[in-house]
Amino acid sequence: MSILANDRFIKALSREDVDRTPIWIMRQAGRYLPEYRATRKQAGDFLALCKNKELCCEVALQPLERFELDAAILFSDILTIPDAMGLGLYFEAGEGPKFKKTINNLSDVESLPEIDVHKDLSYVLDAVSLIRYELNNRVPLIGFSGSPWTLAAYMIEGQGSKTFSKAKAMLYQDPTLLHMLLEKITACVINYLVAQVKSGAQVLQIFDSWGGLLSHDSYSEFSLKYLKNIVDKLKLLISEDVPVIVYTKGGGQWLSKIASINCDCIGIDWTTNIGLAREEVGNSVSIQGNLDPSVLLADRQTIRREVKKILMAYGPNNGHIFNLGHGITPDVDPERVKELIHAVHEFSFKSHLRSC
Amino acid sequence: MSILANDRFIKALSREDVDRTPIWIMRQAGRYLPEYRATRKQAGDFLALCKNKELCCEVALQPLERFELDAAILFSDILTIPDAMGLGLYFEAGEGPKFKKTINNLSDVESLPEIDVHKDLSYVLDAVSLIRYELNNRVPLIGFSGSPWTLAAYMIEGQGSKTFSKAKAMLYQDPTLLHMLLEKITACVINYLVAQVKSGAQVLQIFDSWGGLLSHDSYSEFSLKYLKNIVDKLKLLISEDVPVIVYTKGGGQWLSKIASINCDCIGIDWTTNIGLAREEVGNSVSIQGNLDPSVLLADRQTIRREVKKILMAYGPNNGHIFNLGHGITPDVDPERVKELIHAVHEFSFKSHLRSC
Repeated sequence: MSILANDRFIKALSREDVDRTPIWIMRQAGRYLPEYRATRKQAGDFLALCKNKELCCEVALQPLERFELDAAILFSDILTIPDAMGLGLYFEAGEGPKFKKTINNLSDVESLPEIDVHKDLSYVLDAVSLIRYELNNRVPLIGFSGSPWTLAAYMIEGQGSKTFSKAKAMLYQDPTLLHMLLEKITACVINYLVAQVKSGAQVLQIFDSWGGLLSHDSYSEFSLKYLKNIVDKLKLLISEDVPVIVYTKGGGQWLSKIASINCDCIGIDWTTNIGLAREEVGNSVSIQGNLDPSVLLADRQTIRREVKKILMAYGPNNGHIFNLGHGITPDVDPERVKELIHAVHEFSFKSHLRSC
Repeated sequence: MSILANDRFIKALSREDVDRTPIWIMRQAGRYLPEYRATRKQAGDFLALCKNKELCCEVALQPLERFELDAAILFSDILTIPDAMGLGLYFEAGEGPKFKKTINNLSDVESLPEIDVHKDLSYVLDAVSLIRYELNNRVPLIGFSGSPWTLAAYMIEGQGSKTFSKAKAMLYQDPTLLHMLLEKITACVINYLVAQVKSGAQVLQIFDSWGGLLSHDSYSEFSLKYLKNIVDKLKLLISEDVPVIVYTKGGGQWLSKIASINCDCIGIDWTTNIGLAREEVGNSVSIQGNLDPSVLLADRQTIRREVKKILMAYGPNNGHIFNLGHGITPDVDPERVKELIHAVHEFSFKSHLRSC
């Protein structure tokens, strides 16, 4: 790993000593920033932005110009893989992602092409390289992918959904077919993440955004199993030490299972008490999280109180990366983010002192 | 309690011996039934249906005519209380509930009227009486209410929401104001449930549909506290033995806390393994649940397999009421419900034999 000006995030991912708790924010390059909205307007639409490496780089760096963050994250979408597989990702104004084609049966799964990530997703890899170059080792760069289950859920449903009932129907009715689909996606996610590392990503996060919709048993069989395959393969295929973060939204009941797949860090949402999470998983992994994003709609004093609660609950242990429990929402005032970061700086110093 | 032809549900709620696991289905009187859709059409719209006691009675009894269910539930909406408080509940085609007025500040909370449930919600109580009369002690009748937090969340937000960020903003920014609102709602929920019992309800369920959106600490402070107040008061005010079921969707991380408030039964959604839930709460409460509603979109064999899994996971213990982990969805074929109920009958008999 090259010499980073700020390596707090990397150190916290290995449970090493840090001078204070590192912080980054899921969706930190996003609509709550006026400069992001301006760049997006310039790009035309969201997908055009994702496919333009210069603009991706610009928006990835915007939050670092404003705030003292300890990591940058690739700017992209979690649905680039299904799009590259030919499903035709598009966005309608004010709505979530949609696909022109969906996966319904064996022939749909069989006819999904094997993609060449270096060719079909070169626009993402180019963005990784450029962001890494422009970061100039200020902070580490996070690459990412959606989890196989989360990607499969969108590919079957064709769009976001409260229940993903089509995807769930396939899970129960034809588990073999769903496993075939998940195998195909998993192979692609592995290639994609390895390629991101080769292009400059220094940490990887897998977003299992819809894992929390699964039953206890289904989570192990249809999501965690593939997350484990990915982590195992990444550790084999990548010679450098590239930490892997697994974030399952709604996964609070399965933390020790997630910790057992040999990932370096688990991301938790705000429904879990981070102190209890730490007790449950011990020192085997780091923990990333877990402020309720809605706290950022409140005032400075409230933000400070809630930040302090999380730092105190985690206690004077190594291995905490401060983050929200889910992505920052577009209605947040950027000034609140500044207050959040100041509070983490101020109170984590005190909580680390306690461990001396 | 009058002599019930079928008292399995009541017995299971007290962890007494039963010949087989009782079953009822959340939203069993609902859009998946063609006869329900016909009655609703006749009523004009959903609210008109809720306010017509004869039609409420008709739809409440419809699922009992078709299926061997072990309980009936009042047909009503969870938002009747805020509507009676003057917020103006309405439904737009294809969308969820909405309110004309919302709660934003102290003056809004202070000006909420104290309602007289016997007058302002007489249409609900009349429906309870009529359903109870028409049931003629075939099975017990469940009365219900939304939880204070769930009602408050809708009253602040004005409609359903993925994140209920307005309600959450009040929670963090002005907890005192939210507590004032919750106190007012709680007083009303207590009167409402007591009146339902006086009108004929034999079991009560509190639906904390949005409890799972709260952080670990906020759940205790803003939802569970008021659920406990309600359960305590009900036990004081109701002389008969009326079991209370508390169902928090997404509450899987807090089961022992919920069990500790002296309710008779906890409802769990499908993300929790019911065997582990039983281990966690022991024999102190009964457990209701927890088939993933999406299983009903699959075939007979799949339904049978998933029912068996749940019955086996719960094991040969008393105190299980079979149900879905959330309401049945409109896209379910009623024939699948028949298969579900047959499977519960068949396999619960075997699992109870195992305990002999």
